[in-house]
Amino acid sequence: MHNTIEKAAGKLGILTPGLGAVATTLIAGVEAVKKNLAQPVGSLTQMGNIRLGKRTENRFPKIKDFVPLADLNDIVFGGWDVYSDNVFEAAMKAKVLEPMLLHAVKAELEAIKPMKAVFDRSYISNLDGDHVKQAATKADLAKMVMDDIENFKEANDCARLVIVWCGSTEIYLEPSAVHETIENFEEGLRNNHPAIAPSMIYAYAAIKLGVPFMNGAPNLTCDIPALIQLAKQTETPIGGKDFKTGQTLMKTILAPGLQARALGIKGWFSSNILGNRDGYVLDHPDNFKTKEVSKLSVLEDILQPEMNPELYGEIYHKVRINYYPPHGDNKESWDNIDIFGWLGYSMQIKINFLCRDSILAAPIVLDLALFSDLAKRAGMSGIQEWLSFYFKSPQTAPDLRPEHDIFKQLIKLQNTLRHMMGEDLITHLGLDYYQDLMEAM
Amino acid sequence: MHNTIEKAAGKLGILTPGLGAVATTLIAGVEAVKKNLAQPVGSLTQMGNIRLGKRTENRFPKIKDFVPLADLNDIVFGGWDVYSDNVFEAAMKAKVLEPMLLHAVKAELEAIKPMKAVFDRSYISNLDGDHVKQAATKADLAKMVMDDIENFKEANDCARLVIVWCGSTEIYLEPSAVHETIENFEEGLRNNHPAIAPSMIYAYAAIKLGVPFMNGAPNLTCDIPALIQLAKQTETPIGGKDFKTGQTLMKTILAPGLQARALGIKGWFSSNILGNRDGYVLDHPDNFKTKEVSKLSVLEDILQPEMNPELYGEIYHKVRINYYPPHGDNKESWDNIDIFGWLGYSMQIKINFLCRDSILAAPIVLDLALFSDLAKRAGMSGIQEWLSFYFKSPQTAPDLRPEHDIFKQLIKLQNTLRHMMGEDLITHLGLDYYQDLMEAM
Amino acid sequence: MHNTIEKAAGKLGILTPGLGAVATTLIAGVEAVKKNLAQPVGSLTQMGNIRLGKRTENRFPKIKDFVPLADLNDIVFGGWDVYSDNVFEAAMKAKVLEPMLLHAVKAELEAIKPMKAVFDRSYISNLDGDHVKQAATKADLAKMVMDDIENFKEANDCARLVIVWCGSTEIYLEPSAVHETIENFEEGLRNNHPAIAPSMIYAYAAIKLGVPFMNGAPNLTCDIPALIQLAKQTETPIGGKDFKTGQTLMKTILAPGLQARALGIKGWFSSNILGNRDGYVLDHPDNFKTKEVSKLSVLEDILQPEMNPELYGEIYHKVRINYYPPHGDNKESWDNIDIFGWLGYSMQIKINFLCRDSILAAPIVLDLALFSDLAKRAGMSGIQEWLSFYFKSPQTAPDLRPEHDIFKQLIKLQNTLRHMMGEDLITHLGLDYYQDLMEAM
Amino acid sequence: MHNTIEKAAGKLGILTPGLGAVATTLIAGVEAVKKNLAQPVGSLTQMGNIRLGKRTENRFPKIKDFVPLADLNDIVFGGWDVYSDNVFEAAMKAKVLEPMLLHAVKAELEAIKPMKAVFDRSYISNLDGDHVKQAATKADLAKMVMDDIENFKEANDCARLVIVWCGSTEIYLEPSAVHETIENFEEGLRNNHPAIAPSMIYAYAAIKLGVPFMNGAPNLTCDIPALIQLAKQTETPIGGKDFKTGQTLMKTILAPGLQARALGIKGWFSSNILGNRDGYVLDHPDNFKTKEVSKLSVLEDILQPEMNPELYGEIYHKVRINYYPPHGDNKESWDNIDIFGWLGYSMQIKINFLCRDSILAAPIVLDLALFSDLAKRAGMSGIQEWLSFYFKSPQTAPDLRPEHDIFKQLIKLQNTLRHMMGEDLITHLGLDYYQDLMEAM
Repeated sequence: MHNTIEKAAGKLGILTPGLGAVATTLIAGVEAVKKNLAQPVGSLTQMGNIRLGKRTENRFPKIKDFVPLADLNDIVFGGWDVYSDNVFEAAMKAKVLEPMLLHAVKAELEAIKPMKAVFDRSYISNLDGDHVKQAATKADLAKMVMDDIENFKEANDCARLVIVWCGSTEIYLEPSAVHETIENFEEGLRNNHPAIAPSMIYAYAAIKLGVPFMNGAPNLTCDIPALIQLAKQTETPIGGKDFKTGQTLMKTILAPGLQARALGIKGWFSSNILGNRDGYVLDHPDNFKTKEVSKLSVLEDILQPEMNPELYGEIYHKVRINYYPPHGDNKESWDNIDIFGWLGYSMQIKINFLCRDSILAAPIVLDLALFSDLAKRAGMSGIQEWLSFYFKSPQTAPDLRPEHDIFKQLIKLQNTLRHMMGEDLITHLGLDYYQDLMEAM
Repeated sequence: MHNTIEKAAGKLGILTPGLGAVATTLIAGVEAVKKNLAQPVGSLTQMGNIRLGKRTENRFPKIKDFVPLADLNDIVFGGWDVYSDNVFEAAMKAKVLEPMLLHAVKAELEAIKPMKAVFDRSYISNLDGDHVKQAATKADLAKMVMDDIENFKEANDCARLVIVWCGSTEIYLEPSAVHETIENFEEGLRNNHPAIAPSMIYAYAAIKLGVPFMNGAPNLTCDIPALIQLAKQTETPIGGKDFKTGQTLMKTILAPGLQARALGIKGWFSSNILGNRDGYVLDHPDNFKTKEVSKLSVLEDILQPEMNPELYGEIYHKVRINYYPPHGDNKESWDNIDIFGWLGYSMQIKINFLCRDSILAAPIVLDLALFSDLAKRAGMSGIQEWLSFYFKSPQTAPDLRPEHDIFKQLIKLQNTLRHMMGEDLITHLGLDYYQDLMEAM
Repeated sequence: MHNTIEKAAGKLGILTPGLGAVATTLIAGVEAVKKNLAQPVGSLTQMGNIRLGKRTENRFPKIKDFVPLADLNDIVFGGWDVYSDNVFEAAMKAKVLEPMLLHAVKAELEAIKPMKAVFDRSYISNLDGDHVKQAATKADLAKMVMDDIENFKEANDCARLVIVWCGSTEIYLEPSAVHETIENFEEGLRNNHPAIAPSMIYAYAAIKLGVPFMNGAPNLTCDIPALIQLAKQTETPIGGKDFKTGQTLMKTILAPGLQARALGIKGWFSSNILGNRDGYVLDHPDNFKTKEVSKLSVLEDILQPEMNPELYGEIYHKVRINYYPPHGDNKESWDNIDIFGWLGYSMQIKINFLCRDSILAAPIVLDLALFSDLAKRAGMSGIQEWLSFYFKSPQTAPDLRPEHDIFKQLIKLQNTLRHMMGEDLITHLGLDYYQDLMEAM
Repeated sequence: MHNTIEKAAGKLGILTPGLGAVATTLIAGVEAVKKNLAQPVGSLTQMGNIRLGKRTENRFPKIKDFVPLADLNDIVFGGWDVYSDNVFEAAMKAKVLEPMLLHAVKAELEAIKPMKAVFDRSYISNLDGDHVKQAATKADLAKMVMDDIENFKEANDCARLVIVWCGSTEIYLEPSAVHETIENFEEGLRNNHPAIAPSMIYAYAAIKLGVPFMNGAPNLTCDIPALIQLAKQTETPIGGKDFKTGQTLMKTILAPGLQARALGIKGWFSSNILGNRDGYVLDHPDNFKTKEVSKLSVLEDILQPEMNPELYGEIYHKVRINYYPPHGDNKESWDNIDIFGWLGYSMQIKINFLCRDSILAAPIVLDLALFSDLAKRAGMSGIQEWLSFYFKSPQTAPDLRPEHDIFKQLIKLQNTLRHMMGEDLITHLGLDYYQDLMEAM
């Protein structure tokens, strides 16, 4: 397979619907990294290593030296937003990065001005903005987004593009008939069907043009049969949903660990406080619903209570998000986990994570952009389950249970890379080390 | 291989040097489980499932239904201790389990009386006891232990035996010449060499007789060339060191998770408070040294700072154990972890684990006993690296770095079981699910 | 004044509307204390000391030896509940105390059977019960409660009675015209006015009969002009609102401490998890509103932001209560406090309180019963502000700001006791110690 | 008394032995406050209010508007240090304040250069420095310090001086014969008696000259009969020991709160991590001993176990300080408190304080300087017990138990100020509010 992966030649355009805290933190960061002012910590593509071969071979190249990824110097950024602030202004308002750092890349950031957004307050009531496209139908809006994409590509001389949704959480939507087939969907676009949310319009436009589309929010977006079908037709990699940061990251680290030891879980209470725009949007119950569904599924899918009712059958799982302005983007989570061990004796784990929302999300956007571009060049189209590693609520084939265990997700990602490049898959069996030893003695 | 594994017929004797909190919690628990009074939670052999085949096959048998393990009803317990209390008395003093539960299995526990221990205060100064073997040389002591083992086997009509060290932490010892070869070691036994600690005498006796020996403390014990060589000669499975419970368990869950995401770590401060006998022994600096070495190596081996100096090169790792009587066996840990992400921005994680030391350790003893007995019947001798999963400081082949990442340890353990039974190893690649899907559409 | 306090002769009946977790924990506890099975820890009247005179006099009697309180052996318990369980049954269901302890006082507890409650689901929708009085008007219900009170007094040969509300939180009510005067109120009783909640009917009945009434919930109850006026006419001590336990207790300890040092506060986020009946009632927004108002006022009243806008003008205070069944009565709170010091530099305090709701509340009921009985005998009628110490939202004279600082509340309570008994008030000035010293040198 | 307090006319010199993190944070802060760049948060003298008269009078002046304190604009700073860095350089190295802030007051800070210190490594082995006075005897060193003081006063045209010890913790010393009388002490100075530590030489020099001396470390320093006697002779206010910041501050807030409610305490485990110079000095056991004694006495003195053995007789109190460089000056404490309530049921409180050592200490130095200067002008000499509020281990008259309860300390401080100014002392009795009310109704 690795012989057939196209080289990453030319410029890669990364477009984000939403140029808020996450996207501006990404863009400012990449510019700072290019100037050697900082390191892209948290990005597996840039900082991570991968083991190849046997342990004794001692081969641990950086991932970026192992698979052919676009170089940071070849990246061009663009995006859409409901506010007309350029990226420098938006980053200053987001208050994630130090002003001193932002000033060091001011020229680069000021040059990036958002395109007008597809936006409708009936999907996000706690948000408002006037930098918005006007059109008679959703089909017209989709056309305008496609024009934006093609104009951007030409204006910036890009060889390839990817799109990563960095916008807010929309209200909760269930899949329905209009999402079933591409025909229904396109008719819905023309008829302004209410079950077609703005994020779906972006996704449709991208996939129609064969541009990889990754969904960083818990919205349905491209997780509907119509767009999965379209992705196959246009040979487009897609993936989602909801960047896995902070508390859910910790949950998908810890739950597999407890399960590994066959420890039971009676309850898991998760509370969050955050004061950024995301927190304000989620203060509205309709939008929180979408997030809650994404956050709650995690434990059940990891623990599989139906398989282990004695250990996980009674688990009470509750997640709360509280808007708390004093913390700004410095999201903080507190988890109480009630576990039980030998003979049912109870124990407790409390985790307090003082994290930074956009600092954790930005490198995920970068990795998804680079990996989905790689997938495109490797001819891998449709749902990219091997990128589950980055998502709270991974999009999978209809008959497959999503895998939330971050360690299985990591092995899947790593073995996919090894497979792409023709290396042996790793199973950690390793009995041979001891057979050699045996014979040697 | 699975065709050649002997059946687990007849009784299995589990002998523990040390009949304190951990061993009595194990024994009382197994008796309670036999009477259906409680569940063996925390034991992978009893409660855990294993996935076989493809995800869509939906095969997840219990491990005990998959590999031929000894049945709990076939287990007989025995052991050695420096106090002469029978197991009921010792369990009451340990205050781990509720008196009501202990009374429900009182008869079974009272029947188990400790054999006299091999003990020397110069290796554990905060412990004292008078139920101790007297002999002129360490060789004589080893002979007395071998006699104990054989007498126990006969008296209890056991088909097989295993020994799991459940005693205290001895003072810190470095490997030296006397540990190099079995000849040196046996001469040292005869000469009362000071570098031969009591735990080594038990290990020697067990291995000499071909009885699997697992080491639950951080002591050197069987992690010396002399005894590894002897284990090969007598075809005995051995393993160690130091049961992985509480804080280190959490550390080997969390550190791989942070590393998976290429998040940097600047500092990790770990504090423990506990008030049981183990805490009192570790209040002495010489014994704490042994424990500290075991606990500190964990992070370095997982994070491999030399491979990733930007992320882990500066890590400051400190572990403290504080004797705090009000908590008794309810060990509590508090960890502060200073991490950094995108562009070096810092974040903090605080973990407060209100655990129960012996409740976490007891099922580990059970699993090690059952798995080492399985290994013996499967003809696997020497170091059992696939049992690293259970140890803070896994014993490995001399040229191999120990694996501390609990998820890699788990895959190793599971793939070893699959390998034993002739099932496919699992790699989590899973691209085929999507090729099928692709063709189906 | 102390010459005129009546002796505490004869039996004291303590009646509680509500025989749930709190009241049964109180009753079982007092019976256990009488039998010397346990100590009444948490009760200032039983365990607390009070300093008298100068420090060098070394006079620190127990409070119960200093002021003439009813003896525990003279107490008789009774109450009303919407369930017909006797106190033993109710205590077993509440799962606060160990079954073994409850069995030790089983006979005493079984003998106490609840009288039928005044109850209306429109005030507490998450609660249901069938052990309820039926009558045409609220005036009739009040009459029935008065009959209950008098029958209890006679049947149990009580010299005196007190009533402490131990029932649930009712929906939020604002004071209105019907609460203004006793005439309006009595007319409202006859007309079934919806602003007269069940708790007010109990309060009215008690006060009308001159029986001290203390209100342990945040309900308005006796904090209305009509009942304050009636209390003056009938010379009845009254007090409220809402037992100060757990998180609010900590808040009124900590906030004065931070203020003492002129440290600023930017935000205070308080989360609670609890799984008892109280938690279930508060899961309904209408009932939570009542509790929230009670809990939120605390900080503002202590910190007085209008006086110190630089330090407390911007404080963002949020309180959340989450129903979480795995914890039962073991309420747990987590607070994040964002403070700032010298030059505005920020710091954080996190408090995790693993408390037990009813264990903290029970001794408060006892103290309020004994102190309000004392007040009655001392001729102190109307609002007992000196008992603010026990309440989340102390009832005060209309023109007075309530005092929430627990240390000022304590001094007020102690100096009131000293004043009652003719002892010097304590000011902690103490310059004289040094004048003596000066002269001595 | 208030008629006789001298006005605060002319300049006040504040001299600190030790120009490290605390003193430079103070100096930079005061300069920033003078320029209106920041607020002196945490300083009671600058930001605190005091209630006067009855609650209904609504009189709450700022303390600085109530008592005649020196104005910040009249303060001149100086000091001694073992390093020759000027205050700007030292502040930059201390890394407590942002470089941007320090640059805003750079000129003022650079102008302050330390005088050579009295220093001897045998009292602080983890510290080294070459900016040190050389002399044959300790008496000569004392003379050199006195010359420094007088030269500073003249050079800076100061009307008055105060000295506050801001240096490190010395090794543990017990009071002995040389500390008994001023005669012995002065002979000891001449003979280089080893029990006379450097801090005592500064204290002697100050007191001899009638300059108020406050001791911010746990060292004995002026808490010896010889210097108390000298302070009386020279009419000099003195006070100590050990600035009450961070964990001990929290402890003296929380312990009185638990005691107020008659809650029992079984154990209190306190852990600290910090990475500044202070942490490094305390990493040496001899210096930690001094600190430990200061920190441990707090609980015992507040709880008085001998008076309340059922509640506090069994308390196990342990304090640990861990040097942890990643945190720098951002000291962090974690406390586990095991309490028990009604019938002995146990509960737990965990407090995690992410504080900043020097940020909490700096305003204490300012307040002590201003209040001790006030005391001098008010004719109050010797031990200033009313300043106990600021100390971990308050110096008191020999026959008096120190008061650690921060709320009693605050009332003592406030009532002392009221007493100085001829205002009524406050007792919080307040029954009169209700008598008025009673009559009004």
